Amino acid sequence: MVDVVIKDGYVITMDPKRRIFERGSVAIEGDKIIAVGKDVKEKADVVIDARGKVVLPGLVNAHTHLSMTLLRGVADDMELKPWLETKIWPLEKNLTGERVYAGALLGCLEMIKSGATCFADQYFFMENVAEAVERSGIRGVLSYGIIEKGDIKKRESELKAGEKLVKTCHGIADGRILTMFGPHAPYTCSPECLSQVKELAKKYKVGIHTHIAETKWEVEEITKRYGKRPVEHLDSIRFLGPEVLAAHCVHLTREEITTIRTRGVKPVHNPVSNMKIACGVSPVPEMLKVGIPVALGTDGAASNNSLDMFKEMKFAALLNKVHKFDPTVMPAQSVLEMATINGAIALGLQDKIGSLEANKKADIILVGLKKPHLAPLHNVTSHLVYSAVGSDVNTTIADGKILMRGRRVLTLDEDKVLERAQRTSDDLITEWRAAK
Amino acid sequence: MVDVVIKDGYVITMDPKRRIFERGSVAIEGDKIIAVGKDVKEKADVVIDARGKVVLPGLVNAHTHLSMTLLRGVADDMELKPWLETKIWPLEKNLTGERVYAGALLGCLEMIKSGATCFADQYFFMENVAEAVERSGIRGVLSYGIIEKGDIKKRESELKAGEKLVKTCHGIADGRILTMFGPHAPYTCSPECLSQVKELAKKYKVGIHTHIAETKWEVEEITKRYGKRPVEHLDSIRFLGPEVLAAHCVHLTREEITTIRTRGVKPVHNPVSNMKIACGVSPVPEMLKVGIPVALGTDGAASNNSLDMFKEMKFAALLNKVHKFDPTVMPAQSVLEMATINGAIALGLQDKIGSLEANKKADIILVGLKKPHLAPLHNVTSHLVYSAVGSDVNTTIADGKILMRGRRVLTLDEDKVLERAQRTSDDLITEWRAAK
Repeated sequence: MVDVVIKDGYVITMDPKRRIFERGSVAIEGDKIIAVGKDVKEKADVVIDARGKVVLPGLVNAHTHLSMTLLRGVADDMELKPWLETKIWPLEKNLTGERVYAGALLGCLEMIKSGATCFADQYFFMENVAEAVERSGIRGVLSYGIIEKGDIKKRESELKAGEKLVKTCHGIADGRILTMFGPHAPYTCSPECLSQVKELAKKYKVGIHTHIAETKWEVEEITKRYGKRPVEHLDSIRFLGPEVLAAHCVHLTREEITTIRTRGVKPVHNPVSNMKIACGVSPVPEMLKVGIPVALGTDGAASNNSLDMFKEMKFAALLNKVHKFDPTVMPAQSVLEMATINGAIALGLQDKIGSLEANKKADIILVGLKKPHLAPLHNVTSHLVYSAVGSDVNTTIADGKILMRGRRVLTLDEDKVLERAQRTSDDLITEWRAAK
Repeated sequence: MVDVVIKDGYVITMDPKRRIFERGSVAIEGDKIIAVGKDVKEKADVVIDARGKVVLPGLVNAHTHLSMTLLRGVADDMELKPWLETKIWPLEKNLTGERVYAGALLGCLEMIKSGATCFADQYFFMENVAEAVERSGIRGVLSYGIIEKGDIKKRESELKAGEKLVKTCHGIADGRILTMFGPHAPYTCSPECLSQVKELAKKYKVGIHTHIAETKWEVEEITKRYGKRPVEHLDSIRFLGPEVLAAHCVHLTREEITTIRTRGVKPVHNPVSNMKIACGVSPVPEMLKVGIPVALGTDGAASNNSLDMFKEMKFAALLNKVHKFDPTVMPAQSVLEMATINGAIALGLQDKIGSLEANKKADIILVGLKKPHLAPLHNVTSHLVYSAVGSDVNTTIADGKILMRGRRVLTLDEDKVLERAQRTSDDLITEWRAAK
């Protein structure tokens, strides 16, 4: 007897051979997958009938700011600078741990309901985010967003906050929560700060989550300050390495792509955010072509305004096609890889998640196929990337635990999470208006 | 007593003043709206509780090829020419009226479930599409796709087929079905053909549904043949006018935009299709700026692969932002207008649909707001464009008739429609493979 068997589904493993079992099963014992394939014979306490459903690895949202769900739809269609300076930053000023917790709970709920079982986050009050992750049952790689702008005092306190998160949260919740250091960006962190982060990450054996080359402005600013483009600058201070998770990577030269590859940096593509804030188009096909395992992320809900990785996959597939006038780039299979196994690689978790294989963690989702927008059925991968949306996810399992079944979330009280997020968000806006 | 009252919803009217009633109601008598506002006192046979829901005009999918649902996911990520020549056209060769009907039923079902209550179609076996539209209860403006490539005999038979559709189907199903002439494109229809279409449309007082300037290839081809770009060419043969519904309009010069405006041509933006086939980016902000009421469409499911107008709105909002490096273009409100009132204008139905106003047809949808991805609630229009998907539609009403309530479609047997489409699509593929 095992704990759970998912039976007779269309199993997309994303394993090294990219095997697909048109009628396959997955057996789960504790937090782990113990068998995948056509001939899974195990009897189980819980049997999930997956006929008419796709069984695939839980999606990995490799870059977000989870608690920004609180600011969803509060400000859109604005230039980046006034958007940040007159809306986002003033609203964030009144954040507290409790408020960040409310936003993180909402984000966890949204991800469970749209099939992401793991995410990489960078924000503030991260211990409170950890609390939400622990309670919701998903997997999170959390980092405290370090911003010091060359201020030595600030640097000390920021590095301490980052270190505290790593010390207190790395490996908690049965290992579901991991941590990284989170220096915000090369324009908000001095070379000294980044070097210290690099040392700390080495000391604690954790990764580094940052933003690189998101906007043209950043490229100009870094060039002005250091005489080098962002990736060149970061490489010149020996910051880059395989432990660096680099969101955006929009503005890259061919040489910078080579640097990313040789240093083993892990870029995360955020197509919706890049489009909404009008940053530009990341050269993802060029990076994939030279073997860089680009991951996929939604960025925060303030600049998306959704955490739906299925929608993000469609945007990823289409954005570079039109940008390059080439419909053959970013085929569905590559995009699904970005959202699963590449996400795992980006977070250094390729031995644990990102594919359905024996001995990996049981992070699994089931997607219902019996829907008009997913009919007729010929190419399931195409449907997942081009036609499905998060709400087609029927069942979500993380670390062997069923978090949602038949669209019902089992770990969180949905109504209460929504109410709390609404109240919190209302308070933020009221206080911000009063302060104006 | 009236027939239906939709009570206490967040009513977005899209009327000329773009009024919104945060707690409003809509009364329906027969096929018509008889009252909209805060103080709707009518008692009704059917009362729909719209608390926690948005009430808005049914979306108008202003350009599609409905029965191409049969080819959803059959071929993706290919160059346009081999995609058409080795996949789409050979597969379409074995279409029959019955098969087109099966695909159209699936398309109607998908649109009902994702909030489109009216669509403009161009395809073959259109009498069979009409049958599906009649049965499903939605509204359709149908055109037979005329392709003659200068062949005089073909021209005669094609024009006859187009004329037959107009004669037999215009105004049927209580007026829910209207027709247009559908000359495919300037590169598949000779100037003589287009002139005859123009005369016929005038004779029957119907519109003309065509494709203009979709690809760079088309611009080159038309320039080679006629020494003019597509819009210039069509204007030089006096084809353009307010009755012309022009899908795509991707490649336009400033002068061509002026021509579109002065002739009153109605462009339809199809962002997903343009991205997937890698055609380019239509200058929609430029057109909206000079007062052209650009509409929105999904194009066929083979090049999308979805008929979800909510997803299409998000793509429309974001594509031009990134293309122009300007996050302020295509704000949510403009995009919602494209999907509602502009669609109505494009189809010449602005007196009947596209907004919630007394005396207009009751084409109405309700969107559930109590979802994690639509929380917290501050700006409903933002949520509709950036966060919602078709499956958030809870209730769909067309011509005063409730087609879906609580996600249950009342006019079609969902299982049977899916099965029939699968069988039909399987047959098409089997025959195509056998013929290879």
